[in-house]
Amino acid sequence: MYVRDTIAAISTPVGEGGIGIVRISGDDAVRIGSVIFKPKKNGGFPSHRFCYGAVTNLDGGLVDEGFAVLMKAPRSYTKEDVFEIHCHGGILVTKKVLELTLASGARLAAPGEFTKRAFLNGRIDLLQAEAVMDVIRSKTDSALSLAEHQREGLLSNRLFEVRDSIKHVLAMVEAYIDFPEEDIDLPVMDEITSSVGSAKDRLSALLATFREGKVIRDGVSVAIAGKPNVGKSSLLNALLQEDRAIVTEIPGTTRDVIEEVINIQGLPVRLLDTAGIRETTDFVEQLGIDLAMDRISRADLVLFMLDSSRPIDLDDLRIHQALSSRKLLLVRNKSDLPDALDLPELFHQYPSVIISTISGEGLEQLRTSIHDCFISGKVVDSREFVAISQERHFVALSKSLAALINAGVVLGSSVQLEMLSVDLREALAAIGEVTGETTADDVLDLIFSRFCIGK
Amino acid sequence: MYVRDTIAAISTPVGEGGIGIVRISGDDAVRIGSVIFKPKKNGGFPSHRFCYGAVTNLDGGLVDEGFAVLMKAPRSYTKEDVFEIHCHGGILVTKKVLELTLASGARLAAPGEFTKRAFLNGRIDLLQAEAVMDVIRSKTDSALSLAEHQREGLLSNRLFEVRDSIKHVLAMVEAYIDFPEEDIDLPVMDEITSSVGSAKDRLSALLATFREGKVIRDGVSVAIAGKPNVGKSSLLNALLQEDRAIVTEIPGTTRDVIEEVINIQGLPVRLLDTAGIRETTDFVEQLGIDLAMDRISRADLVLFMLDSSRPIDLDDLRIHQALSSRKLLLVRNKSDLPDALDLPELFHQYPSVIISTISGEGLEQLRTSIHDCFISGKVVDSREFVAISQERHFVALSKSLAALINAGVVLGSSVQLEMLSVDLREALAAIGEVTGETTADDVLDLIFSRFCIGK
Repeated sequence: MYVRDTIAAISTPVGEGGIGIVRISGDDAVRIGSVIFKPKKNGGFPSHRFCYGAVTNLDGGLVDEGFAVLMKAPRSYTKEDVFEIHCHGGILVTKKVLELTLASGARLAAPGEFTKRAFLNGRIDLLQAEAVMDVIRSKTDSALSLAEHQREGLLSNRLFEVRDSIKHVLAMVEAYIDFPEEDIDLPVMDEITSSVGSAKDRLSALLATFREGKVIRDGVSVAIAGKPNVGKSSLLNALLQEDRAIVTEIPGTTRDVIEEVINIQGLPVRLLDTAGIRETTDFVEQLGIDLAMDRISRADLVLFMLDSSRPIDLDDLRIHQALSSRKLLLVRNKSDLPDALDLPELFHQYPSVIISTISGEGLEQLRTSIHDCFISGKVVDSREFVAISQERHFVALSKSLAALINAGVVLGSSVQLEMLSVDLREALAAIGEVTGETTADDVLDLIFSRFCIGK
Repeated sequence: MYVRDTIAAISTPVGEGGIGIVRISGDDAVRIGSVIFKPKKNGGFPSHRFCYGAVTNLDGGLVDEGFAVLMKAPRSYTKEDVFEIHCHGGILVTKKVLELTLASGARLAAPGEFTKRAFLNGRIDLLQAEAVMDVIRSKTDSALSLAEHQREGLLSNRLFEVRDSIKHVLAMVEAYIDFPEEDIDLPVMDEITSSVGSAKDRLSALLATFREGKVIRDGVSVAIAGKPNVGKSSLLNALLQEDRAIVTEIPGTTRDVIEEVINIQGLPVRLLDTAGIRETTDFVEQLGIDLAMDRISRADLVLFMLDSSRPIDLDDLRIHQALSSRKLLLVRNKSDLPDALDLPELFHQYPSVIISTISGEGLEQLRTSIHDCFISGKVVDSREFVAISQERHFVALSKSLAALINAGVVLGSSVQLEMLSVDLREALAAIGEVTGETTADDVLDLIFSRFCIGK
């Protein structure tokens, strides 16, 4: 349920640019738009027509010139009347236009409220709504492509297939519950069993995409560790030079520890350069090392760097001991120098790459190795890759799968129709939580609160 | 002259937002737009019609959904065919759409290139073009209003009036040059003299607006100076709390010295909090004081703070000596304590305000005093305030005025028509530099290079 009042927000990013857009949605959008926007040519605002004109104060004074476009319900993003004002893209001028809409009766939209209305009005399902923000926040082509597939409804369609087949089974089961005197025909029983089995298989297959989906959507963190002077910072720089991701242009990226985001074959990788780790009595250095160990302990992968021109020493072994519970990739640097590294048996269990940050040798292989630690095969390249990428979806669909497994158990023993019906309903409800059909209001609020303003 | 190729750029600010716009302008805009944007409904792109559809890769794969709108020449910003694609407002997704336009044959637009084309194609004059960026960069209502007036053409119109009257005089003068045997009729002579005089007066009046116009457009810098513990930082905080300007939300504001922008009655004020100034032997403290003195020496106004609960001391006198060449406003702080300040005769020459940063007393008066140091009367409030706000315009129009003054001198002595004609042509050319009729190419390049990308 939502109050059908009229909302407004700045829909373009905050900053200086050529164009800024203030969007109004709701029953009052046309009235408010007409109050503050005067088209150059009379004739009102025909739907989907770009009208040139002026934004004016409530007392008629000029604020800015620009365009207005009305999208009449239901042919709009929210399925309500949407009125967009396109003015100059300054911070103050867009804010003034927004303030005029508020002074004329609009309410400031909450984050994601336009998309929430699109969802509540049935234009898109919840999976598609959530994908909108993923599209906007995508940092790599793979993440964008995954998000666009979800936004288009490809993931929803897979779930709807499963849902419809469970619904069909449930209808059959409940028909028999209503007529307890009848016995279940064997062909019907077969159909029920096979439908539940196939729904289970399809859910399992989707759930199996989660690990990679999440990695593509959220990226991974990779820490560079090793004793001083093995070339950690040189490696960071070498990878940055070629792979620096677009995300680093966004203000606000944390820089307390040296952390850069790079794009490795479509995978967003947060690369952490950590302090050199060694035994020390220096208090300040020890603080740096503690911080490094803390970050390393939370990384998805640790690049454990060794100096291949020198034999393994105690520092290397101590670091190995500290890291041994982590996922490790050995990086043997300085291949441009004569090899003096005699890798102990203990280290043979890890994948390793030989590189030189000076000549560039092995860097391509290192990229591939990092990528392959997270992504199997060629799924990322595939146009058709549809995956679950969010924890919330994974948890709910796991619940659905568990219910279907229960249903299978019931089917395999003495068939108790009521029990079967409860399991099937549970499986359906869990899918509905994902698609939005049965999602609780507080979960919806939480989901949309993570959106940006104006979307 | 410009090459009539087709240009493209992201026209919304960089960042995360609901909507991002990629704009294409030029003969090829429709072709390029059609390659990468597929409307849901067939029917091509009627001008000024908002079409829903999909942005696709060159091989047909989906990139994003959104709207496209074509504005057919000459009914567009540039007077060329303009094709806008409205997609999701993410950094990566807008960049991908832009890259598709480039891959399809567009050239990346230079900063301000759309507006430059609007100017070169005669849609707006140079004053209006320059005002576009002022609108976008405005930090206060007064600055915005001044910029909008200029963008609308109010300033241009005043110059055109002067220009037309000089042209009229010039035509009369040159008619007599062509027929040297004729004597100038007395009524014609009177009209020439009075027209030149009135043009001179009108230019003088415009030139007189420059000081305030510049202050409103660019703001002023105000340094807070005084010995330690007179309440400098408390004053900064008190003013910030109520007047903090929107500009501080923009990333990149310099913070090497504490500098905040506030909005005092429509005036953008960069407020500098400086280190306490006193005699010291501490090397590091002296560095801070040197820096403070350097910044103070470049401020438009210095708020010289005194502690009204203590008598004037040597530190105060030393600071006064160092500041005596600056524009000073005395701020007597701590009016909440008993007054023990006996202001020496020497200090009576400065305007002064009594405040308490603790009770808030006098802060409003201080704001007004700061404002009145720069703005006389109520010009800022006036809807009709039209002013010169840029150095370039001031210099050129001063040149024009000088030529008119020369013309007046020629008229007052023995009238030499050729000399008069030279002066009038010079006056016209200088006005043309401002409106863009006779502006050199390198000046144009410089002007538009200060624009943001996409405008």
